[in-house]
Amino acid sequence: MNNVIVQKYGGTSVGDEEKIKHIAKNICKKFDEGYKPIIVVSAMGSTTDELIKMSKKVTFSDKNPDLRERDILLSTGELVSSTLLAISIKSLGKNVISLSGSQAGILTNDIHGSARISDIKINRLKDEIAKNNIIIIAGFQGINPNGDITTLGRGGSDTTAVAIAAAIKADLCEIYTDVEGIYTTDPKVVYNARKLDKINYEDMLEMSVLGAKMHPRSIELASQYKVPIYVCGTFSSKSGTLITGENNMENNKKITGIAIDKNVAKISIKKIKDQPGIIARILEPLSAKSISIDVIVQNTPDKGYIDFSFSLSEDDLEYAHEILINEKKLKYDSIVKANGLSKISLVGSGMQNESGYASTMFKVLGDQHVSIDMITTSEIRITCLINQIDTTKAANALHSVFELDK
Amino acid sequence: MNNVIVQKYGGTSVGDEEKIKHIAKNICKKFDEGYKPIIVVSAMGSTTDELIKMSKKVTFSDKNPDLRERDILLSTGELVSSTLLAISIKSLGKNVISLSGSQAGILTNDIHGSARISDIKINRLKDEIAKNNIIIIAGFQGINPNGDITTLGRGGSDTTAVAIAAAIKADLCEIYTDVEGIYTTDPKVVYNARKLDKINYEDMLEMSVLGAKMHPRSIELASQYKVPIYVCGTFSSKSGTLITGENNMENNKKITGIAIDKNVAKISIKKIKDQPGIIARILEPLSAKSISIDVIVQNTPDKGYIDFSFSLSEDDLEYAHEILINEKKLKYDSIVKANGLSKISLVGSGMQNESGYASTMFKVLGDQHVSIDMITTSEIRITCLINQIDTTKAANALHSVFELDK
Repeated sequence: MNNVIVQKYGGTSVGDEEKIKHIAKNICKKFDEGYKPIIVVSAMGSTTDELIKMSKKVTFSDKNPDLRERDILLSTGELVSSTLLAISIKSLGKNVISLSGSQAGILTNDIHGSARISDIKINRLKDEIAKNNIIIIAGFQGINPNGDITTLGRGGSDTTAVAIAAAIKADLCEIYTDVEGIYTTDPKVVYNARKLDKINYEDMLEMSVLGAKMHPRSIELASQYKVPIYVCGTFSSKSGTLITGENNMENNKKITGIAIDKNVAKISIKKIKDQPGIIARILEPLSAKSISIDVIVQNTPDKGYIDFSFSLSEDDLEYAHEILINEKKLKYDSIVKANGLSKISLVGSGMQNESGYASTMFKVLGDQHVSIDMITTSEIRITCLINQIDTTKAANALHSVFELDK
Repeated sequence: MNNVIVQKYGGTSVGDEEKIKHIAKNICKKFDEGYKPIIVVSAMGSTTDELIKMSKKVTFSDKNPDLRERDILLSTGELVSSTLLAISIKSLGKNVISLSGSQAGILTNDIHGSARISDIKINRLKDEIAKNNIIIIAGFQGINPNGDITTLGRGGSDTTAVAIAAAIKADLCEIYTDVEGIYTTDPKVVYNARKLDKINYEDMLEMSVLGAKMHPRSIELASQYKVPIYVCGTFSSKSGTLITGENNMENNKKITGIAIDKNVAKISIKKIKDQPGIIARILEPLSAKSISIDVIVQNTPDKGYIDFSFSLSEDDLEYAHEILINEKKLKYDSIVKANGLSKISLVGSGMQNESGYASTMFKVLGDQHVSIDMITTSEIRITCLINQIDTTKAANALHSVFELDK
């Protein structure tokens, strides 16, 4: 749609009332330049974390908070930021309306806590654009077929923004955040991390899956619907990073970046009786609750038995552990849970069909006395699980050896 | 409906996570005793005040926050408390569901900020009762014919509870609060204020309109639909106060109580040119914005001119003042706004057709050197506007002279 621009502001960008006023002015400026802005906002600052904490505190024993209720609870964070932004813009004399995810037409499946968008009904958005309204959408949320509020998982507002941009055929989806763009690696871990001018969807998807700051599904959607994304700093005038389908011809590097995820845990199940379909029987109850598992390792300690380990997000560890110990049909010696791990990954679509990257990576980590717990690879990435305390050392060594600072 | 009981918990009763857990246990006990509880909750502690403060902070210049947006913002407070309570009850192993005002079928008119309930669609409530679910309803909110969230005004959760009780034909509506019942006057102002065992709707309505802790419309509704209300302390085992249609025969006192409202402001318009309909022209723009005005005084300083003063809530003062100075068609010398006033009222249906109460009241205030700014009376009450600093002195003297402590 002509001149429609989607902008998403993250939690730190709407972190307090002064920041909201700053953004309000920016949006009005864009409107005055002739754009039709559709704004997606996250919850203010650490609101979501605080709400999760509260939901745990009111829970008796060590049960997990009911997910339907928790989704309604969490959705309030974005309602607060979206209405405050609308109030601020309105006081600048512009026509503006805030919409909840449901009002914005965002339909999802019914997996509470990590729902997927199934469709976007754009009638309301088109009506509001026709009325010349600036539209503020509460990110991170939608509504399921039962009419209950769902949330899209951590970082889900990115996905809201891209999905809206795709549905309304916006020219561009801008992601405003507290960093100035996408970096070769986490600048908090590697001080000479370099900002990229461009990155393609493929590499960005790996980077985001592996811990970079964007919601992976937002990149999948952007790639599928060819939505260009521009990531930049809310309070910075420097240029950001463009995420598109184009390969960056001028960049001859094979490695695009190093993704770091410090939020990794592991569950190991020792001596499971080996039977056909046993792995599926372990994983199905987890996927039924939308718990993503990541790296998987299987050993055969004794004939007829297997040891099975997998990594997962630290946030999911307790819940996954509880689910597995309640699976009475599984026979095994013991289940061990562990956190305090990191995942470090070399990413680059330039690596495809070229060899030697994995062995170089293992050698660099060995030289640094970093022990590797698990390994997994794809066409365009190599991932190692290591101890969290080794993260900085490992990332800096890899960044330097692969010359990502240049 | 058989065994259905409506309970409302106020802001201090759900003030923190521990209090929510305490309430959750009480509700489960009631459920186990065979009741079908429908719970209405206010926002936690001072949440609503904090949200109002935020809405003012994001507003440029001295504009008032957009009321549609502010209503969505404020409604989040009750969504948080209702879902936390539901999570807590669920973790005790009970079936429970939280419903927003809209989901609970609460339809209102479209006066944002002080909407009136127009109807309650009880289908969803009946379904959830049939499923044996404990129902938690977010108080204070409904939905207007445009599908926008509305709020019912300060204390509106009381009205939600009574309206639900009336619609579902509950046996009783219990209001749990931070005081143990209805007192002859505010115990914070008069230390020997006495708790009433019973009070009739008529007296309670006057008391609540005049500053006692309940939402006046909740009493109107209770009176209209004959819903008995029991007000008691959430964290107390002492008996509370029953509000019903019955006159309390055992209580021979003519005066039921003294209502105190410290939140009073005044606007005076000096030397308005007198014309037919001039008062209506002053008041119409205020009532259009749902600003209630209270005591009215009119003088005639010079022939052909009037001075016009009225009292209103301190919360509305700035907004009302802004509306009036923008009414370009009004011709006058000056508008003066003032706050720092109190309203003190003798209330008692026993006063009807008996004389002498007003003169006694004025004499008591005179003896205490309390000057009276405005006076208004009804069949069952006498109200004086005084300076806020004189409130304690005046209330104690009246309470003692009319023997309310006995």
